[in-house]
Amino acid sequence: MDDGFPRIISVDDHVIEAPHVWQTYLPERFRAEGPRVERSGVSRMGNVGGVYSWEEDPSATPCDFWLFEDRRYPMTRVMAAAGLPREEVTVSPVTFEEMRPGCYDPAARLADMETAGIEASLSFPTFPRFAGQAFSETNDRDLGFACIQAYNDWMVEEWCADPRMVPITLVPFWDPQLAAGEVRRNAARGVRAITFSEIPAYLGWPSIHDVDRYWDPLFAACAETGVVVCMHIGSGSRMPSTSADAPPAVQSTATFTNCMLSLCDWLFSGVLERYPTLKIAYSEGQIGWIPYILERADHVWESNRAWGGVADLLPDPPSTYFSRQVFGCFFSDRFGLENLADIGEDNVMFECDYPHSDSTWPDTQDVARELTFGLEPAVVEKIMRGNAIELFGLRDRIPGLQTAGA
Amino acid sequence: MDDGFPRIISVDDHVIEAPHVWQTYLPERFRAEGPRVERSGVSRMGNVGGVYSWEEDPSATPCDFWLFEDRRYPMTRVMAAAGLPREEVTVSPVTFEEMRPGCYDPAARLADMETAGIEASLSFPTFPRFAGQAFSETNDRDLGFACIQAYNDWMVEEWCADPRMVPITLVPFWDPQLAAGEVRRNAARGVRAITFSEIPAYLGWPSIHDVDRYWDPLFAACAETGVVVCMHIGSGSRMPSTSADAPPAVQSTATFTNCMLSLCDWLFSGVLERYPTLKIAYSEGQIGWIPYILERADHVWESNRAWGGVADLLPDPPSTYFSRQVFGCFFSDRFGLENLADIGEDNVMFECDYPHSDSTWPDTQDVARELTFGLEPAVVEKIMRGNAIELFGLRDRIPGLQTAGA
Repeated sequence: MDDGFPRIISVDDHVIEAPHVWQTYLPERFRAEGPRVERSGVSRMGNVGGVYSWEEDPSATPCDFWLFEDRRYPMTRVMAAAGLPREEVTVSPVTFEEMRPGCYDPAARLADMETAGIEASLSFPTFPRFAGQAFSETNDRDLGFACIQAYNDWMVEEWCADPRMVPITLVPFWDPQLAAGEVRRNAARGVRAITFSEIPAYLGWPSIHDVDRYWDPLFAACAETGVVVCMHIGSGSRMPSTSADAPPAVQSTATFTNCMLSLCDWLFSGVLERYPTLKIAYSEGQIGWIPYILERADHVWESNRAWGGVADLLPDPPSTYFSRQVFGCFFSDRFGLENLADIGEDNVMFECDYPHSDSTWPDTQDVARELTFGLEPAVVEKIMRGNAIELFGLRDRIPGLQTAGA
Repeated sequence: MDDGFPRIISVDDHVIEAPHVWQTYLPERFRAEGPRVERSGVSRMGNVGGVYSWEEDPSATPCDFWLFEDRRYPMTRVMAAAGLPREEVTVSPVTFEEMRPGCYDPAARLADMETAGIEASLSFPTFPRFAGQAFSETNDRDLGFACIQAYNDWMVEEWCADPRMVPITLVPFWDPQLAAGEVRRNAARGVRAITFSEIPAYLGWPSIHDVDRYWDPLFAACAETGVVVCMHIGSGSRMPSTSADAPPAVQSTATFTNCMLSLCDWLFSGVLERYPTLKIAYSEGQIGWIPYILERADHVWESNRAWGGVADLLPDPPSTYFSRQVFGCFFSDRFGLENLADIGEDNVMFECDYPHSDSTWPDTQDVARELTFGLEPAVVEKIMRGNAIELFGLRDRIPGLQTAGA
């Protein structure tokens, strides 16, 4: 259907790392210890609050696992759901052969993107988790950093060999100077995004409020190189939970919670004041809740000024920093789009979430067309691609890219 | 200023329990063990995430404490802020003499309500905490239940002797049959509200999803007697937190988090389907985030139907139950009011939050007038009083009450 609807730039998809990533890209001395894939039979697989459980059973369903140090990371159908009938998308084992190749193969991914009218895509990691936490959890810092650099090299050289694949790289959390160096190394070869934790304190790292400004070397490097700090829901390794017996629908509805808390953190942290060119982007957090938060944050800022403290960190109301430096994205959020004026038409992008169970693929164009029905074409253009083009510098990256001004 | 703006019914205020409450209303055999007030000097008072800390210091600022069993509950200026200049509203000790009498004296409260154009008010407890948690935490069940009944008797007989004071009573959490009996005892004398925990599992009690339907006797009694289940923010004894060093403004902005999570719980619990006449009301949670949640919940419900499970509990989309049985309230939320059509003009009420630091008293009428500017007078009437009159049955309670139809 060619009705002039813009070709989409999806700012939140996921790559299932192919088995060769670390075995090819790690320096040879680290390969034996590096992440690798093994297969075993598994039964009774479960997932409560992001923690997987299973029983080994050689005669049961085969599952491909990532092995790294003493941990095993199972692959499941919910993380590789693209193309599966809805009733097969469950927390159950999966092997690479059962997955749609677009999960792990960039050429197949590009073909799947084409099918759904998606021109470019930015993909978060899977096995190392959304902010690459696994490599900052190891006590062997040399190995951890080698794994981060190997992932980044594979991301840039192989996954993103075609410029329509937009690279997003990992940073080490234990050494912000080292992280800053890695940001600069990748920025020099065109990378404009890192994946960071929405709430690093949940992972045991200093918060962004840290009195010693632990993260500032990293934020300074990002601000200086135009690298966007992207934060995916769940990148604090914690999902909202009310009780162990709550149905999964409760968590699924409230899935934006930590993204919202992270936004509150950033708005009151002073980081956006200290680094006025730094940009941050939330992934899979949706947008319809943002106007409430901005109004409330401004109200709290106004009240707290009298008590002192906040005024030193934030000379302007929190919503000012949002407009200037924060981006949200959505996959299905009619209410958010109806209230775009209270969020900002320059601050919103669209995502496909391939190959997760929430993904709209292959109907992404139809979903986008329906969601944006009635909006001005120029606004639809911004949300579907223009804002992502600006934020991630894609005009320089993708030859012949159609842009609104062109 | 008499411009015809409706006299307000505030559905969320707070009573500071006067020192005599339990010493007068407990049966004599419990009085020695019952809650009582003592004064001591205190320095270095702090509050992190709702947990108070202080140092005893006879020569320092005097503080009135509630004593119950082996715990001490300090009184602070933030909980008794009415009439204090903004710069004096801090987490610091306070005594009864320093408080505005409207905090603890019903006649003085009525006079303060009059000043602010508030016709009727519903007040949550302070020292036992918002859902009366303190009395369900004691291991002496007889004492705990006696304290609950004493509070309820004082609430009905003394605090609410004037019908413009709307009673809200406590229930025991350890025995839902006993709780149901207490609901019926109070309903028989005109009580139409209980205070319940937004997330009982956070307090160690079964969740509302409990497979054995632990809470059903209580919910059945409330549905049968028209008693509203009111849930105040913080009534799960947990406030949202990102890190210990986050400025208070972060928590203050995100203060609706557990209210939002509770709503997700209730929408997917099946309780509102099982008890179609049961009404629940959220206090101090505001409303501007509700449309996003309803849209997302309906979307998740639609997706999850295919996986099974949810369809058995909820034949209709979650938003159906919201419209029929759930009420929100706000004190300052322009965005929520602009989107009233997506929440429901019959589902929203207003609150003053006297005597807390967020309270609009004594400017409540002006704030309300400004917030509702441009809304239809009939809608303003509903939000400011009509919905509360219906929900809490105030037409029968308050003689000569002006109502929209009258």
